[in-house]
Amino acid sequence: MFTGYSSDLIDDFRLRWLRLQACVREAGADALAVGTNVNLLYLTGRVFMGVCYLPAEGAPWFFVRRPCGLKGPNVREIRKPEQIAEILAAAGLPLPKTLMLEADDLTHSEWARLGAAFPGASVANGSALLRSCRAVKTPYEIRVMKKTGSRHADVVMRFASVYSPGMTDQAWSIEMFRLMLQAGSLGLFRIAGGSMEGFMGTILAGDNGGAVSPYDFALGGAGLHPSLPVGQNGVLLKESMSVMVDVAGNFYGYLTDCTRTFGVGRLSPDAYRAHQTAIDIQRAVAAAGKPGSRCEDLYALALDMAEKAGFAQHFMGGAQKAKFVGHGVGLVINEQPVLGARSKDVLEAGMCIALEPKFVIPGTGAVGVEDTFLVTPNGMENLTVCDPSIQTL
Amino acid sequence: MFTGYSSDLIDDFRLRWLRLQACVREAGADALAVGTNVNLLYLTGRVFMGVCYLPAEGAPWFFVRRPCGLKGPNVREIRKPEQIAEILAAAGLPLPKTLMLEADDLTHSEWARLGAAFPGASVANGSALLRSCRAVKTPYEIRVMKKTGSRHADVVMRFASVYSPGMTDQAWSIEMFRLMLQAGSLGLFRIAGGSMEGFMGTILAGDNGGAVSPYDFALGGAGLHPSLPVGQNGVLLKESMSVMVDVAGNFYGYLTDCTRTFGVGRLSPDAYRAHQTAIDIQRAVAAAGKPGSRCEDLYALALDMAEKAGFAQHFMGGAQKAKFVGHGVGLVINEQPVLGARSKDVLEAGMCIALEPKFVIPGTGAVGVEDTFLVTPNGMENLTVCDPSIQTL
Repeated sequence: MFTGYSSDLIDDFRLRWLRLQACVREAGADALAVGTNVNLLYLTGRVFMGVCYLPAEGAPWFFVRRPCGLKGPNVREIRKPEQIAEILAAAGLPLPKTLMLEADDLTHSEWARLGAAFPGASVANGSALLRSCRAVKTPYEIRVMKKTGSRHADVVMRFASVYSPGMTDQAWSIEMFRLMLQAGSLGLFRIAGGSMEGFMGTILAGDNGGAVSPYDFALGGAGLHPSLPVGQNGVLLKESMSVMVDVAGNFYGYLTDCTRTFGVGRLSPDAYRAHQTAIDIQRAVAAAGKPGSRCEDLYALALDMAEKAGFAQHFMGGAQKAKFVGHGVGLVINEQPVLGARSKDVLEAGMCIALEPKFVIPGTGAVGVEDTFLVTPNGMENLTVCDPSIQTL
Repeated sequence: MFTGYSSDLIDDFRLRWLRLQACVREAGADALAVGTNVNLLYLTGRVFMGVCYLPAEGAPWFFVRRPCGLKGPNVREIRKPEQIAEILAAAGLPLPKTLMLEADDLTHSEWARLGAAFPGASVANGSALLRSCRAVKTPYEIRVMKKTGSRHADVVMRFASVYSPGMTDQAWSIEMFRLMLQAGSLGLFRIAGGSMEGFMGTILAGDNGGAVSPYDFALGGAGLHPSLPVGQNGVLLKESMSVMVDVAGNFYGYLTDCTRTFGVGRLSPDAYRAHQTAIDIQRAVAAAGKPGSRCEDLYALALDMAEKAGFAQHFMGGAQKAKFVGHGVGLVINEQPVLGARSKDVLEAGMCIALEPKFVIPGTGAVGVEDTFLVTPNGMENLTVCDPSIQTL
């Protein structure tokens, strides 16, 4: 199909296309046209400027607006999206009556222009369909997620080695970001939805663990500046503060999520108890999670354990609480499904889930863990294996 | 207006609102509703989850969906955008007949939902209007750009100090990124348009300077992985290679742009001649640029000088050439105007422009400079002052 790709990667793309095509047919549509980076990456393994056109049946087409590494029989260079319909017609393909576009991802202007490039087509929203396909990883993607998780965990275990007394949260963060980049991370932190932003991760020390955040992260932190109100707030790391380090790994375009908690010296007894509760919750949810498990049940299990341990009021935030304990990860940090209160999602084999039970302990800060798990037919397998206990700095 | 803001900052926001309101009236619209991070930051000085509603006349309103630092008389908490019209009506405000929304920035789904929250309103595109207002900086913004440019240039002058022989482009990049973060940069590289992506900057060594890129950067580079095809490609830095370092500064939410060229040992004579031509072009364009100057004339001047120096075929790229020599900077790295071939833009006092004449010299790599200039009534003032010559590593 594509020139220069390995045959197992080509086979994997065929699988992704076939899955999507089944969804397109099920939605009663004739085709799906994709134009945003993350979904182009999903469909072709690379980012380019252009459009992938996936008819409900038959081979996909790739329309490239600037030169890129994508070469192959159905790859065509175009100057503008209006050429797509002409090229398809010249190839004898019928134009779609119902066309799916990424309404949740394209800007309105892009959506309107791309839709108008298919005269007479009625346009439906294909974003949810892409998200739900992306949630279930293919064999190739699972191999990439495993490699990413393993490389990620290796770096996490070295975070403490670049700490020195007297550092601010940001000073230590810079050293951890450097370790992550030196280990091969690309650094880019992709998030679905334009309103979420972040740099490489968040490092929450002391009271900043409970800071109210305008972003929908589990725990956000106040950030260094109102232009980017997330993450470390510049505080000096001091005795008896907990420091929660949540830096994503991105080694091959896929993200894994892993959080570890550090203590500057000795923390309060409650902090250790709550942290052990978080570890217990993560283990229990991972043990309960199987293909077919309902995500809201897994969240309820987590909440119930937090309550029984006496930490319900500190679970997933302070004044502001996240209403989930886990979420999908992959090409973006916030893939589907969500393990939350009113989630209708159900686990499937191949999903990659970040399980992140966390607590905010007044006077100490945030504690808890996060690891990325693969849902297998036999249960959930941790891809970011490393010591979950609080490390003393 | 807002609680906890300095009075000069409040005054500056009033100026931004008044400018925008004049544009809204000129467009024949009744109001502008803004919901994306960069424009919210422009209108309020912070990112939050919500909507700023700016009627064509009178005070703006701020609808906040998650708690944030924004407090004041017209700030209201909402759960969903559908409440906005109710609140405005309860305050005795007429609902807009014509409403401007950010069609180039909101996703189609966000655009459709926000538009529907104003029953009966016809919706027009307000993105261009916001972009053109943002292009002309206010007094407060000019102070921030000056401080940013100065801090940025200080870091650039220390890049060579973290180079060691035997490094790859990425190894050196990591040390430069660290310097930039240690100096206070927030790291986030904001770009308008979802199809452009990048980490903190690009470091282009040798042949990678001429790599064809799917992104619309002046020179892009191949990148480390097809999931992020921009910037350094992992090459070992070797004798007689040029290395072009283009890392953005973001200290207070505003970006300045500054590129410097380094030589690993001695470069080819053509590289030095082309680099001097780039310096000459930048000086000539900066000397010619005044309020009222046509951007296409400034580009033509640059192209003409490149031709006369005999480097036209290497100007702004190798196999693929950028058709511009400069661009606005500010809240995003690609603000208006564009100093390009068919630009209809005209310089105005208060614009901040990155002037980046660059050449790709076969066998050596990219050379040239980039600085951020402020357009003043008397001409263009460099905000990123530092030695423009090729530094030998």
